[in-house]
Amino acid sequence: MVKNIRIAVAGLGTVGIGLLKLLQRRHAYFRTALGLSFHVVGVSARDRTKDRGIDLSDVAWFDDPVRLAQADGIDVVVELIGGEDGVAKATVEAAIGAGRSVVTANKALLARHGVALAKKAETRGVSLGFEAAVAGGIPVIKTMREALGGNDVSRVYGILNGTCNFILTKMQEEGRPFEDVLAEAQALGYAEADPTFDVGGHDTAHKLALLTSLAFGTRADFDQIELEGIQRITPADIEAADQLGYRIKLLGVAERTDHGIEQRVHPAMVAKHSAIAEVSGVTNAVALNGDAVGDLLLVGPGAGAGATASAVMGDLLDAARGHAFAPFILPAGELGLAERAAEGTHRGAFYVRMSVFDRPGVMATICGCMADEDVSLESIVQRRPASVLPGTSATPEPGSQTSLVLITHGTIESRLRRAIAAIEASGDIMAEAAQIIRIEQL
Amino acid sequence: MVKNIRIAVAGLGTVGIGLLKLLQRRHAYFRTALGLSFHVVGVSARDRTKDRGIDLSDVAWFDDPVRLAQADGIDVVVELIGGEDGVAKATVEAAIGAGRSVVTANKALLARHGVALAKKAETRGVSLGFEAAVAGGIPVIKTMREALGGNDVSRVYGILNGTCNFILTKMQEEGRPFEDVLAEAQALGYAEADPTFDVGGHDTAHKLALLTSLAFGTRADFDQIELEGIQRITPADIEAADQLGYRIKLLGVAERTDHGIEQRVHPAMVAKHSAIAEVSGVTNAVALNGDAVGDLLLVGPGAGAGATASAVMGDLLDAARGHAFAPFILPAGELGLAERAAEGTHRGAFYVRMSVFDRPGVMATICGCMADEDVSLESIVQRRPASVLPGTSATPEPGSQTSLVLITHGTIESRLRRAIAAIEASGDIMAEAAQIIRIEQL
Repeated sequence: MVKNIRIAVAGLGTVGIGLLKLLQRRHAYFRTALGLSFHVVGVSARDRTKDRGIDLSDVAWFDDPVRLAQADGIDVVVELIGGEDGVAKATVEAAIGAGRSVVTANKALLARHGVALAKKAETRGVSLGFEAAVAGGIPVIKTMREALGGNDVSRVYGILNGTCNFILTKMQEEGRPFEDVLAEAQALGYAEADPTFDVGGHDTAHKLALLTSLAFGTRADFDQIELEGIQRITPADIEAADQLGYRIKLLGVAERTDHGIEQRVHPAMVAKHSAIAEVSGVTNAVALNGDAVGDLLLVGPGAGAGATASAVMGDLLDAARGHAFAPFILPAGELGLAERAAEGTHRGAFYVRMSVFDRPGVMATICGCMADEDVSLESIVQRRPASVLPGTSATPEPGSQTSLVLITHGTIESRLRRAIAAIEASGDIMAEAAQIIRIEQL
Repeated sequence: MVKNIRIAVAGLGTVGIGLLKLLQRRHAYFRTALGLSFHVVGVSARDRTKDRGIDLSDVAWFDDPVRLAQADGIDVVVELIGGEDGVAKATVEAAIGAGRSVVTANKALLARHGVALAKKAETRGVSLGFEAAVAGGIPVIKTMREALGGNDVSRVYGILNGTCNFILTKMQEEGRPFEDVLAEAQALGYAEADPTFDVGGHDTAHKLALLTSLAFGTRADFDQIELEGIQRITPADIEAADQLGYRIKLLGVAERTDHGIEQRVHPAMVAKHSAIAEVSGVTNAVALNGDAVGDLLLVGPGAGAGATASAVMGDLLDAARGHAFAPFILPAGELGLAERAAEGTHRGAFYVRMSVFDRPGVMATICGCMADEDVSLESIVQRRPASVLPGTSATPEPGSQTSLVLITHGTIESRLRRAIAAIEASGDIMAEAAQIIRIEQL
C-alpha cells in the first residue's frame, strides 16, 4: 500500500533545488521501502525563465506563492522563500488556512511569528515543521521534541552560525585580524556583502530564540536576547585564549538559572580540550543538558543545500507518516513568557583584556576596584611590549602601554562591569576600552 | 483529552529503577503538556524483597516476566533484563505475541535475533523500540530512521563502549599501561570482573551490527564483524600517536565500499584536532555520513541509569503517540544480507610499530618488502633506546633492539599484512610481533 504525498515548493533557491533533487533521487526508495510516494505538483519562484538545472516541465508553476499554497490537490507546502514578514509569512498563513501542513527553513519568520503560526496550525490540525530553521542538517528539534521528551532541559547552547565560526577558526589558525578574514569569507560566499546579520549575532539569536522555546516551553522572543557579535575579537584575544587553554566561539546560550532564563549570544571562551572547541569552519554544534540524559552534543553542517534539504525531508517524512506534533512541543496556548534573567545577573568566570599605562599604582588601583566589587581573580598576565624581553637590559619606559589579561573566578557580571567602570573612572589608567569575554563552563 | 498508556517493566536493575523514577518525576508534565498519562501497572524482577528505594506497593508483581508480558491490561512492555537468549527473549516474544509494543535496551538480543523479532512485531502490528540499545542516551536510531530518512548513508562509525574509551583516555592522559588502567576501571565499576566482553570489542560489535542494519538496510549479523580489542595497545603506541597528531580510540565502523560492506571493530588512530578525538572518558559518539546532510556527529553518555532511561522514554513516547516504524526502518522481509567486504580488502593508511634488531640491512629489507607489495610509506620514525641520545658519544650496539614506527599511505590491508609477513620471514629482524593500527580518515 503506497501513500501519495503531494508537495508544493515555494522558493527555488539552492535549498529548493536541493530538495527537488533529493526527492527525485530517493523517489523509488521512499516508495518501495517506506510506502511513501512524494510528488512535487507545484512550485513558485521569482523568475520562471531561469535555468535551475532541473526539469520542471510537468510541475505547475505559480508566480504567486500564496496562490500556490492555496491551490487544489496539495498536501504539504514547503516554504523556502525566507524573510520574517512579507510573502513568506503570507504563504505559510495561506497554506495553514487552506489546511495544508507546512515545512519551512525560515528561522526569522518562526522567531518573530512562531507562536501565532503555531496557534493557527494547531487550530487547523496541520503540522508546522521547522527542523531546517535551526542548525541546518543537525536534527536538534526532533531530538528535543521526541528523543529527549522525558528530560527536563536546563541548558541549550551552541555554535549556530557557520560564518562566524569560519571567521573565528581562520583567525585562530592563521593569526589574522577580523576584517581580513571577513573579506575572505565574503569572497568565498560564506559571508554576505553586509555581514552584520551574521557577525553581529542576529542570525544566531533567531535560532536561539527557537531553541529556548523548545527547551523551556516558553514563547520564542527574539527581543529578550542579549546580543554581542564577534567584530571586536582581536588576534590578541585569540592568542591569549590559546595560551590560557581556550578557544573563542560565538555561542548562543539559553539557560535556566535561579534568576530566570538567560538568553545570550556572545563570543565565549570554551576549554580547548572539549569536543565543541574542535568544531571548526562553517560547522555548527548544539549542546543540551537534560536531567535524565546528561550532556548531549550534536555536530554537523549548519547550512548548505544538501544539509538543509535533508532537514526539510525529515519533516516531510514525519508529515507523510501522519506524525503530528505541536510545533513548539507544548500547545501554543500553554507556552509561557520566559521569566527573563535581569541583565548582568549572569554568573560565570570572565576574561578581561585591558591596555593600561604602565605606571606605579596602576595595578593597585585595578586590584582594588576588583576587590571592592568582590571580584576575585584567578590569574593575571601582564604582557610587556615585545621589544622589552626578560633578561635584556632594557626596561619598559614608565607610562608606556602594556597589555593586561585577567581571568576572574566565578562572579556576577554586573559586579565585574562596575569594577571595570570604576577603573576607567580612576583617571588615566586604561588606554582603550576593556575587552570582556565570558568563559563558558561546558 | 488524555491518553492512558499502561506499562509493564521487566527487570528492575539501575535502568529499570531509573525509568520508574523518570516516569514518576515527569508524570504531571506528560499528562498536562502532552496529554499522555503513563501508568506502570506491573513489574518483574528476581528478588521481590530487595529495597530498591522506590514505592512499588500499588504495582502488580510478577516473578515470571513472561507472565507479566502476557498479563491483561498492558499496552507496552519494557524489557530491561538483558542477555541475548533465555528469559529476555522469551519475554519479548511473549509481549509481541500478546499484541503489545516492546521497548528494550537489549543490544545482544537485537544483534542476534533482531530480524526474527522485527518480523514478529510487524506481523502483529506492534512496535519494537531499541534506542537504548545503541550508544545509551544518544538518539542515533531516531536520527537515522527519521531525521536522516532522506539520506543514503555511506558510513557510520563511533565510540560505542565507554569502558574502552575510559581506559584509552586514561592511558593517554597518564601514560599508564593497559593492565593498570583496566584494574582502576574495575575498581570504579566501569569494567566487569571479566572485562573481555568490553575490552575485546564484543559489546561495540553488538551495537555496530544494529547500526549497520539501520544504515544499509541489511540484516544485523554479528558474526560478519571483524573484531580486535584494545588489549594490545601500549603506552608506546599512545605516545607515538600523540607525536604523529593522533589519538587512539576503539571504533566500530560500518562502511559501504566498492567491495561490499565493511564492518569492523578495532583500535584506530583519529586526528587529534577532530571533535571525536576529544570524546573522552566513558562518553560515546556516533558519526554518520549521508549523501544529503554530509557529516553528522552525536556525542553523549553511552550508559548509566539516567541516560538509558531517557532513551527508553523516547521510545515510550513514540509508542504512546502511536508513531510506529518498522524496527529496522525497512520491513524485516526486505532486509538484505550485507554483501560482506572480504577480509583484508580494507583500504586505508596504517600505523605500524615494530621492534627490530638494529643491524645493517634491516631497513633495506623492511623497505624492500613494503615496496614488493606496493605499500608506500609516508613516514618512518626510528627511535633508539633512551640511553643513546643524539649528540652523545655513545652509539647503539649493533644488534640491540630499536623501535620503528611506519606510517603508510593509503594501501590495501592484505598487502600490508603480506609485507609484514615477508619481513618476519626474512630471518632475524623483528624482536616481537608488529603492532598494526588503522588510521581512520574522518
